[in-house]
Amino acid sequence: MSEIHPVILCGGSGTRLWPRSRKSMPKPFLPLVGDQTLFEATLARAADPALFASPIVVTGTAHLAHVEAQLAEGSGASIVVEPEAKNTAAAIALAAARLPEDAVMLVCPSDHYIADVPAFHAAARAAAGLARHDYMVAFGITPTAPETGFGYIRRGEPIEGGFAVAQFVEKPDLQSAMQFLASGDYSWNGGIFAFRAGAFMAELAQHRPALAEAVTRAVQRGSTDGARFHPDPAAFAEIESESVDYAVMEETARAAMVPVAMGWSDIGNWQALRDAREGDEAGNRTHGRVELVDCTGVLADTDGPRINAIGLTDVAIVVDGDEVLVTTMDGAQKVGKLSGAANQ
Amino acid sequence: MSEIHPVILCGGSGTRLWPRSRKSMPKPFLPLVGDQTLFEATLARAADPALFASPIVVTGTAHLAHVEAQLAEGSGASIVVEPEAKNTAAAIALAAARLPEDAVMLVCPSDHYIADVPAFHAAARAAAGLARHDYMVAFGITPTAPETGFGYIRRGEPIEGGFAVAQFVEKPDLQSAMQFLASGDYSWNGGIFAFRAGAFMAELAQHRPALAEAVTRAVQRGSTDGARFHPDPAAFAEIESESVDYAVMEETARAAMVPVAMGWSDIGNWQALRDAREGDEAGNRTHGRVELVDCTGVLADTDGPRINAIGLTDVAIVVDGDEVLVTTMDGAQKVGKLSGAANQ
Repeated sequence: MSEIHPVILCGGSGTRLWPRSRKSMPKPFLPLVGDQTLFEATLARAADPALFASPIVVTGTAHLAHVEAQLAEGSGASIVVEPEAKNTAAAIALAAARLPEDAVMLVCPSDHYIADVPAFHAAARAAAGLARHDYMVAFGITPTAPETGFGYIRRGEPIEGGFAVAQFVEKPDLQSAMQFLASGDYSWNGGIFAFRAGAFMAELAQHRPALAEAVTRAVQRGSTDGARFHPDPAAFAEIESESVDYAVMEETARAAMVPVAMGWSDIGNWQALRDAREGDEAGNRTHGRVELVDCTGVLADTDGPRINAIGLTDVAIVVDGDEVLVTTMDGAQKVGKLSGAANQ
Repeated sequence: MSEIHPVILCGGSGTRLWPRSRKSMPKPFLPLVGDQTLFEATLARAADPALFASPIVVTGTAHLAHVEAQLAEGSGASIVVEPEAKNTAAAIALAAARLPEDAVMLVCPSDHYIADVPAFHAAARAAAGLARHDYMVAFGITPTAPETGFGYIRRGEPIEGGFAVAQFVEKPDLQSAMQFLASGDYSWNGGIFAFRAGAFMAELAQHRPALAEAVTRAVQRGSTDGARFHPDPAAFAEIESESVDYAVMEETARAAMVPVAMGWSDIGNWQALRDAREGDEAGNRTHGRVELVDCTGVLADTDGPRINAIGLTDVAIVVDGDEVLVTTMDGAQKVGKLSGAANQ
């Protein structure tokens, strides 16, 4: 059986795309690049029936209405509803415990942008091939800049269809990031993983037995309501909150990676969003009623009032309801510290 | 009789402070600096009964409601209501023809800012003294920058209380403006004038007899309605539209000027407005709900939505109803060319 089971993680809400992304309408559910929302595009990328089975969406009660509103007709998706966020190890394990042991899962965050879908599919195939041999497989995204906001993966010996992982590296300083970029041995860890369900649960049971046990019980005692699956609340409450990187990827002896260049962006701030959108001749990106004069590299995005801008370079202007944000691209990383973003 | 009759010109509407200043609510009637509107501040500057008589406001039907709403109780103002705008020569002549011949008029635009009111009063006294000797007197504002947007006055021989005017100079190029500033012989022509009413009408009759005759008839045949005076529409329609600079100041043999440094600004664009307002330690000026991070020399002014700005230097951000303007200070001179400003 060649099918890959997409596991779409629809979790927390960031603050760095405030004011467009808000607690009540977070990033995955917004059409930030093109007409589809990031969640819709994530589903669409993993919807080819020749390659993919129906998806499992893991989300929380806060986002459930958005998830159900944006699931395509006939997607056949099942939804695991978490009573509260417990980080990625639990979210992935809840899906793994619901799947047959030999099912191959492809874990995808729902708030990233991928320009080159065929490259994504090719990497998914390669990663699934390794997963079938019980490797814990990470997508290793070919870096295009010395980013200090991502974790890195240093690749080791080649194995069929990819590489062993020599080391997972936490977010580096700029000098290290430049060395990583220059060496060619490092990839970004974008949080996309492939596992055989049974192998993942076995690794989790080995390295985090309490977590694996609580997840297994939460699934065994859970209840189904149409497409929704509700883990047992009492068992769920005992689950430790930990990332899959710490709980499994850095523990396993069978970590592997598949290198991929696919025009990936985590849309991590307004600069990243500008760069992911296609610009005009002057590098400007506009959405809504906008008039620009003598502007270069400007992102202007409004949900109503007209934006009029003159003489600006590399500035983002965002109008959303009762909030207007104007930031340099360099300043975009501080958006989350604005009181409006912090006190949602 | 030492009284000076303020003649407040409340005419056209510019576009360079759009979107705050709009055709329906133009610049003079907005509280752009401090709590008073520019019109209210103009009246207040000329309200000291030891120096000034009750004002005459010359305005158009479009602005009449704003004028009457903002006139102080008991101001004793009379209002000359122009059926249409006919430029400054006619506006001043309408007031002059309504006054006794020996009344001394002080003509004041209603949309300028003056920081140093005692200096304004001292200059008004000096200008009135020259006007009583039938000089056509202009305030000569001591320049503080090589502005290319103003006309200049080159001063000639001293006369008691001021100087003869050697030359009126049209808006110069930057090189000339820098020479003017360096020479010390040039002042800005801010459109503030003092005349004896009868002397002004005599000069006008000499240099623009048709204009003077049409104004005289429009006043003789006009009608009074409370504080409002309506020039005769038929006679008014015949009045040529010309500036007082061309019609009188550049024609007369008795042009004089009074130099004055009084913290004057024509608030001619958003940069000028920023500079007229008092800034905080970083040179930022905010009005309304604003949060600034790492900003310098920023003007942020909103009538409702919160402005959040990060990392900007010398940028104006203005939110007014359905329009958001973001411009560099250098770009501020192009605001009038935005389609929203041009197509009001």
